[in-house]
Amino acid sequence: MKVNGKAYRTIWPSKTEEYVEIIDQTRLPFEFVIVKLASLDNTASAITEMLVRGAPLIGATTAWGMWLAMLDDNSDNGLAQAQDQLRATRPTAVNLQWALAKMEAALRPALPPERAVIAYALAQEITDNDVRLCSAIGDYGSRLITDLYKSKGSDTAINILTHCNAGWLATVDWGTALAPIYKAHNAGIPVHVWVDETRPRNQGNFLTAWELHQHGVPNTVIVDNAGGHLMQHGKVDICIVGTDRTTANGDVCNKIGTYLKALAANDNDIPFYVAAPSTSIDWTITDGLKNIPIEQRDSLEVSRISGKLDDGTIGTVQVMPDGSNTRNDAFDVTPARLVTGIITERGVSKANQQSLSKLFPEFI
Amino acid sequence: MKVNGKAYRTIWPSKTEEYVEIIDQTRLPFEFVIVKLASLDNTASAITEMLVRGAPLIGATTAWGMWLAMLDDNSDNGLAQAQDQLRATRPTAVNLQWALAKMEAALRPALPPERAVIAYALAQEITDNDVRLCSAIGDYGSRLITDLYKSKGSDTAINILTHCNAGWLATVDWGTALAPIYKAHNAGIPVHVWVDETRPRNQGNFLTAWELHQHGVPNTVIVDNAGGHLMQHGKVDICIVGTDRTTANGDVCNKIGTYLKALAANDNDIPFYVAAPSTSIDWTITDGLKNIPIEQRDSLEVSRISGKLDDGTIGTVQVMPDGSNTRNDAFDVTPARLVTGIITERGVSKANQQSLSKLFPEFI
Repeated sequence: MKVNGKAYRTIWPSKTEEYVEIIDQTRLPFEFVIVKLASLDNTASAITEMLVRGAPLIGATTAWGMWLAMLDDNSDNGLAQAQDQLRATRPTAVNLQWALAKMEAALRPALPPERAVIAYALAQEITDNDVRLCSAIGDYGSRLITDLYKSKGSDTAINILTHCNAGWLATVDWGTALAPIYKAHNAGIPVHVWVDETRPRNQGNFLTAWELHQHGVPNTVIVDNAGGHLMQHGKVDICIVGTDRTTANGDVCNKIGTYLKALAANDNDIPFYVAAPSTSIDWTITDGLKNIPIEQRDSLEVSRISGKLDDGTIGTVQVMPDGSNTRNDAFDVTPARLVTGIITERGVSKANQQSLSKLFPEFI
Repeated sequence: MKVNGKAYRTIWPSKTEEYVEIIDQTRLPFEFVIVKLASLDNTASAITEMLVRGAPLIGATTAWGMWLAMLDDNSDNGLAQAQDQLRATRPTAVNLQWALAKMEAALRPALPPERAVIAYALAQEITDNDVRLCSAIGDYGSRLITDLYKSKGSDTAINILTHCNAGWLATVDWGTALAPIYKAHNAGIPVHVWVDETRPRNQGNFLTAWELHQHGVPNTVIVDNAGGHLMQHGKVDICIVGTDRTTANGDVCNKIGTYLKALAANDNDIPFYVAAPSTSIDWTITDGLKNIPIEQRDSLEVSRISGKLDDGTIGTVQVMPDGSNTRNDAFDVTPARLVTGIITERGVSKANQQSLSKLFPEFI
C-alpha cells in the first residue's frame, strides 16, 4: 500500500546486500523510519519489541530471520538455535510456528552450504504468498461489504468497526481485516471505519488510523469502551477483525478486547467477521480458551504511553499513580459461537470445524 | 476517607468565609491540590471541566453552587439564571437535576434575603445526606462480598472488577461502587480490585487506583479491553460499578464501556451489581437507551493524554496521527436485563421497576 504516495510492503530484502528492511512500527504514526535487519538477533528483537507485529508479518519476518541465520551459521546446530530463538519471541501468533515449520522442512534435509539460498527463496515465497492470501481475503470480504451497501439502499456509507491493526502493516501488504475495506473503498463503495484505539499499545490510533488515512479511507478513532454504545445506536453495520491464532473449530484468539466487541455485536445482531488467512489457523487445536497460550507483556505498556509532545518531539507519560500494579494480557479468545464467519483466502467459512474443513480439506 | 493519613471529604464549606473547597480531581494522582470555589461561575466551570465529577459529588457541588449564587444575587432572576447555568454544565447525571429541584423547592418560596442562609443549610444537608447514603450502600454491598467470601471457602481474596471511579472521590465520602469494598476491607475480608483504566479520561488509574492505594486496598490496573478475558478465566468474582443515572426499570447509564463489562459478566455468569443511591435514580423514565441524553465531550480527551513525564513534571502527549477524527461519547446504557442487582441505601434491589418500587414506594 502507499505511504505519502509511494508503494511499500512492510518487509523486503535488499536487492544487493545481505539484509532485509522493515518499517519500524513502534515509531508510527509520528515518524516513518526504515530499519535494516542484518542478523538473527536483529530479527528476533524486531519481533519481540514489536518493530514488526501482526501475525502474518511475524510469519514472514521469521522466514527472513531464518535466512539471515543461515548466512551466519548454516550447521544443524545453527538451524536448531535459530528456530529456538525465533520461537521464543512471541508465543501466541501461530504464523510464527507455521513459518518455522516450513523452513525446517525445507532446510533440515538440505546440505548446510545450500541452506541460505533455499531459505532466501522460501522466505520470498512466503512473503509473496502472504500478499496473495490477503488480496484474496480482500476480494471475498469486500463482497460482504458490497452486499450490505446494496441491502441498505446504496445511499449511506457502510460503518465498519475494527479492533487493533490487521491492516497492511500487520501483513506484507493489503492486510487481513482491512483488505476487504481497501478493496471495497477502491471499488467505490462508501465506507467509514470506527477504529478502536486498542490499549495498551494503541495499534488502532497509531497504525490503523494512520494507514487508512494514508490510503484515503474515512475513519474515526474511538476509545475501546465506545464500540458497544455505537452498536446499540445503529452506528455499526459490520465488525471485521484479524486474528493471531484461530482454532480448527473457529475460536478466535486476537488482540485483548476483541471478545468484548464480539459480545456487543452478538447482543445487537451485528455481523462479526474474522479475517484469517489459513496460515493463522491452528488446525491442531479445538479449544481456544484452553489451548492457546496468552502472552503476558510488560506492565510498562499499560503504565506508560508515548505520543507527540507539544514541541513536536516524542515523549512518554506515566499514567498510573506511583507504585500501582498493572497486568497486561496481550490477547483474548472469542468463542466460535460469537463469530458470524471467517473470511479466508478460499472464501467465507462459518466458524466451525465442518465448514472450515470444507474449504481446507487438506488440513483436517 | 484518608489522604496521606488525614481524613477528607471531597467538598466542604469554609468555616469562616464565603467559599467552598474541593479537591481538583484533574490534578490527581500526581498532585493533591485544593481549590476554592467562591462564585457560581467557579462552580459551573469546576463541574464542566471535571475538577469535580461523579454523579453524587456533582449533585452536592451543584447545591453549594446555588448557595454561592444566592450570595451574589438572591433575586428570582438570579435564582433562575443560576439554575440554568448549572443545569447546562453536564447533561447526563441526574443528581445535578435532583439537587437543583431540591434547591428550587426550598428557595423559590423564600424571601430573597433569606435565600442564601436557606441554601447553605440545604447544601450542607444534601452533603451530609450523601455520606449517609453511601455508607448505607457500603453496608449492604459489603454483605454481598462477605457472602461470596464465605461461599468460596473463606481462603482466597474476592476479586472485584470496577469501571471508572465511583469511589469516595465521586461522592462526598465512602463512594458508591467502592463503599462496599471499603467496608468489606475494613471488616477484614480480603479483597482485590481490578481497576479498569477507563479511557478516555483514565478515572480508573488516575482516581480509583489512587484512592484505593491511599486506603490500603490491594488493586491492579488493567486496560479496558482486559476485563472480559479475566472473567473468562475465573479471575473476577463480582463486578460493582456506579451510575450517573438509572431508570425506574433498572437501565443503568454509566461511564462509556460499562455495557461491555456487563455483557462479559453475563456471558460468564458473574454477578454484575450497580451501586446507586436513590438520588441517582430517575424515576420519570423507563427506557435508558431512548430517554437518557448522552453527553458528547471534546475529542481532545481522546487524542491527548496527560501524565507524568520522566522529569517529574506533568505533560500531555498527542496519541493520534495529525488530522485524525475522533468521537467521544461519555456514557453508555446497560440494559436492566444485564444487571444482577442495584445496591441502594435501603438494600439490594433487582433491576426492575417492581423491586425498586418496593424499596422506594414514595417515588413510583
